[in-house]
Amino acid sequence: MDQLEKCSANYVPLSPITFLKRAASAYPDRTSIVYGRTHFSWMQTYERCCRLASSIRSLHISKNYVVSILAPNVPAMYEMHFAVPMAGAVLNPINTRLDASTIAIHLRHSEAKLFFVDWEFIKVASDAINILVASGGPTSVSPLVVVIDDIDNPTGARLGELEYEDLIRRGDPDAEPHHITDEWDPITLNYTSGTTSAPKGVVYSHRGAYLNTLSLLLQWGVGSEPVYLWSLPMFHCNGWTFTWGLAAQGGVNVCIRKTSAADIYSAIIAHGVTHMCCVPAAFDMLIEGSRMHVGPLLSQVHVLTGGAPPPASLLDHVENMGFKVSHAYGMTEATGAALICEWQAHWDLLPADERARLKARQGVSMLSLADVDVKKLNSTDSVPRDGNTMGEIVLRGSNIMKGYFKNPEATAKAFEGGWFSTGDAGVMHPDGYIEIKDRLKDVIISGGENISSVEVETVLHQHPAVSQAAVVAMPHPKWGESPCAFIVLKGDRMENIVKEEDIIAYCQKNMPRFMAPKKVVFKDELPMTNKKTVIKSELRKIAKGFTAVLEQKSNDVREHLPEWLSTMSKL
Amino acid sequence: MDQLEKCSANYVPLSPITFLKRAASAYPDRTSIVYGRTHFSWMQTYERCCRLASSIRSLHISKNYVVSILAPNVPAMYEMHFAVPMAGAVLNPINTRLDASTIAIHLRHSEAKLFFVDWEFIKVASDAINILVASGGPTSVSPLVVVIDDIDNPTGARLGELEYEDLIRRGDPDAEPHHITDEWDPITLNYTSGTTSAPKGVVYSHRGAYLNTLSLLLQWGVGSEPVYLWSLPMFHCNGWTFTWGLAAQGGVNVCIRKTSAADIYSAIIAHGVTHMCCVPAAFDMLIEGSRMHVGPLLSQVHVLTGGAPPPASLLDHVENMGFKVSHAYGMTEATGAALICEWQAHWDLLPADERARLKARQGVSMLSLADVDVKKLNSTDSVPRDGNTMGEIVLRGSNIMKGYFKNPEATAKAFEGGWFSTGDAGVMHPDGYIEIKDRLKDVIISGGENISSVEVETVLHQHPAVSQAAVVAMPHPKWGESPCAFIVLKGDRMENIVKEEDIIAYCQKNMPRFMAPKKVVFKDELPMTNKKTVIKSELRKIAKGFTAVLEQKSNDVREHLPEWLSTMSKL
Repeated sequence: MDQLEKCSANYVPLSPITFLKRAASAYPDRTSIVYGRTHFSWMQTYERCCRLASSIRSLHISKNYVVSILAPNVPAMYEMHFAVPMAGAVLNPINTRLDASTIAIHLRHSEAKLFFVDWEFIKVASDAINILVASGGPTSVSPLVVVIDDIDNPTGARLGELEYEDLIRRGDPDAEPHHITDEWDPITLNYTSGTTSAPKGVVYSHRGAYLNTLSLLLQWGVGSEPVYLWSLPMFHCNGWTFTWGLAAQGGVNVCIRKTSAADIYSAIIAHGVTHMCCVPAAFDMLIEGSRMHVGPLLSQVHVLTGGAPPPASLLDHVENMGFKVSHAYGMTEATGAALICEWQAHWDLLPADERARLKARQGVSMLSLADVDVKKLNSTDSVPRDGNTMGEIVLRGSNIMKGYFKNPEATAKAFEGGWFSTGDAGVMHPDGYIEIKDRLKDVIISGGENISSVEVETVLHQHPAVSQAAVVAMPHPKWGESPCAFIVLKGDRMENIVKEEDIIAYCQKNMPRFMAPKKVVFKDELPMTNKKTVIKSELRKIAKGFTAVLEQKSNDVREHLPEWLSTMSKL
Repeated sequence: MDQLEKCSANYVPLSPITFLKRAASAYPDRTSIVYGRTHFSWMQTYERCCRLASSIRSLHISKNYVVSILAPNVPAMYEMHFAVPMAGAVLNPINTRLDASTIAIHLRHSEAKLFFVDWEFIKVASDAINILVASGGPTSVSPLVVVIDDIDNPTGARLGELEYEDLIRRGDPDAEPHHITDEWDPITLNYTSGTTSAPKGVVYSHRGAYLNTLSLLLQWGVGSEPVYLWSLPMFHCNGWTFTWGLAAQGGVNVCIRKTSAADIYSAIIAHGVTHMCCVPAAFDMLIEGSRMHVGPLLSQVHVLTGGAPPPASLLDHVENMGFKVSHAYGMTEATGAALICEWQAHWDLLPADERARLKARQGVSMLSLADVDVKKLNSTDSVPRDGNTMGEIVLRGSNIMKGYFKNPEATAKAFEGGWFSTGDAGVMHPDGYIEIKDRLKDVIISGGENISSVEVETVLHQHPAVSQAAVVAMPHPKWGESPCAFIVLKGDRMENIVKEEDIIAYCQKNMPRFMAPKKVVFKDELPMTNKKTVIKSELRKIAKGFTAVLEQKSNDVREHLPEWLSTMSKL
């Protein structure tokens, strides 16, 4: 049977590009894209992409060249997800929230040859190019710029000679797309961070993109003829692969430039949206918008959320409004979704808070992942399926990135031990569902027990005087590390009323003793990133200078017993 | 980007075997198999398959060895779809309707080392082995037999030493499955015919099986927690890949030994079946059974049908009973389904006969197919999308077989021109849906026009005196070929009333003139296969002896104009 060879009839490299050609054949007249008054059919989208691919090639772009794009969710952003790989090149979508100097770092690192810029971003793009050119060196060559004017409402804004619709007009609709001979070839380049001199550019293969696209469609249960609202930026992991997925299903892409509540509700009502993605932080906006603009939805909208667990308090509310929420967990390195919290029908019968607790779990692996595991810290063994023992979530499969572009050290580190290390600490529940407890680097290891800083913070937030809380490790002479809490109190002069020992006593009452902070530091504010997350590395530096006082009680073995044992057996 | 290498973290060979390990982790307690009073969970099914795989290896079965099975849809048949490839071997499911000598041909050709036999088929299996051994030659070695006793109701029947449950008991549940290093490795061997000395054994790869499984689940819209009734034999293209698909979705396999209407309806009601597959011929049984056993179904059952278009007369009836019918087209060589008639929501508004006409079409390509085309006969050009011009349906993609086992000539012929030739003649409709018109070898080529024998037969069947009709080509001095009809009339002595010229006149009135038979032969019966299809090759032999009389009219160019031209322009 080994003599049965691959040939062009039975072996075609996997690529999501095939979905577009198929859509043009199977759904020629169905709507592909709606954007304001602009409508395209799948046949038109295919022809426009063929034309654009041929124009891109005529600009001397060839295999493995990077083509960058800085644009919101407009039709061009969608089309480029096909046209660029159809030209043989690699698409690099840039986060529209970045500043000029970070964009310059990405352009230099990716050595982008072409740079497509939406008219609204001409200023920041132009600044970025100036910074790039001024920085000197062999990779500081300015890319050729193509301005994407608004297709629905042209502004005339330009930066250089080239304009998107003009490239499409000049392209050859009958030009054969680049022939993909190896499904391991790169298709996109997505940067996860870029503020340092060594940005992490995640490279996807055609194979990985194809497989995760199909798997997510299947596991989210996206049926035929979906109407998908582009509320999630396409620059996030290529829109969690739904860029390619909508072509696979021949669905409708509802493109919107802004994602205000008004825009979202207008689009839902105008186009009968069935599916959308968003981060849980957007739930507030959906609830607020619902009060301002509309009543309950006429038909259910399926919402896939990720990035953080959907908060219980909001989940019930948005579900009652007509949104059906599914929760996935992923990262750029896993081509978007890696785990999905597959809903089980019998959970429908549970009370709302229990349902929210189950839905907040990260879930089970995508079919495109060959394997997922939670490994004991500093070990190759799996944690027991007890919902309690923390370990690092590791992934393996065809939807894991090819690696980091021009960064062999980071690539080797990420793949150490033959698994992709997520850097997330989690537990495995008895039913096989994984739940994240903390970022691995924030876990506090105290006397062999792993303490989730997030769990301690959750209890601290429940204290009536606490406004903000962050917990990090500080050295402990006996247990190695122990938790140190940094706290911002509500209102002024609360510090005169609430003392360190009050907070510690509150914690000791509401969590296993070993988890309770040994030190509490009151602050006026916590160091924060632009994204409003606490910069724990700064707090860790401070905490390193502390040493926990060796209490008498800490000799008590009971303090470090697992919770179930210390509560149950009353030693 | 070419320096980003494959490693075990980001490249795992595609195999449907991964679905089972995942199911054991993600759905450990959900029901995997129900068969009478026997119930298994996915964890149990995984452990049983690990044990069986380890036992199979202990019998000195290794990579690429063939393991045959002759069994109905019992749990063992399901488990073997995982356990055999988990042992590194290749599964060969044998059609239970075959006779001993055909089974012997398959065993000899496949060089099966192990032969699993359900207790009910011991006699025919034993006869087959005797025939095999008696035939002599180097490949006439008897395989080792393992009897599968009924797990729910053991009979004690044996053939030799080995028994299935005993193998499972002796197996090591912790044995690591065979490590698949190449997704192109064979997983199953399915014979399409075996009555000749050169049987066609279709070999699937792990890759093809994985991809077609996911694609069919997605395109049929199989949601989470399906309850699947095994009404279609698993020996048909591995149950149209649903053997592997049910593990991917963590669904319930409802196994039944017999597929009588009573068994089907009992299972549907007892287990809340949501999905099943069957050939359209089974619709009659479903309707009949419904009258005898139950009223309308309590909840909808999705039925995937294939092998022949679902007949309009029955479609409406079964749909009103609560079955929702989808239509797929495929063949063993395409790992089951190749096209699927994806339903479009707006068709729901059409009248029943129009809906049936649309659903009878073979449809659009599976996502796992990279390409499908209808090629003009004897040409590499595609037919126009006019719903009228016939060509051969050709396929290309990762779900096409590796090839025919030990048959390089047939393999090369099937893949000639870089496509898999289906041997089916069809048309492409303007909306991109393909419809089969005839088997290619039955198409009659007359003056450059392609005539579908099936279409002529359809008109003949509408004649009130005609009971059976078959149309084949006969030589024509001017047009090359022309249609010749063989007809069985209703009742005796009809031949005295209905004459050849009546039939020809009827046809000329009801179809384009060039399609009408030039000769009609009345017969008492038509030559038939066991499967009740007319053996056209025999009729062709007879027709070869005829020559169409050169009518005066046949000089008329209008006779060979395309239909739309001859009717519209009235030359």
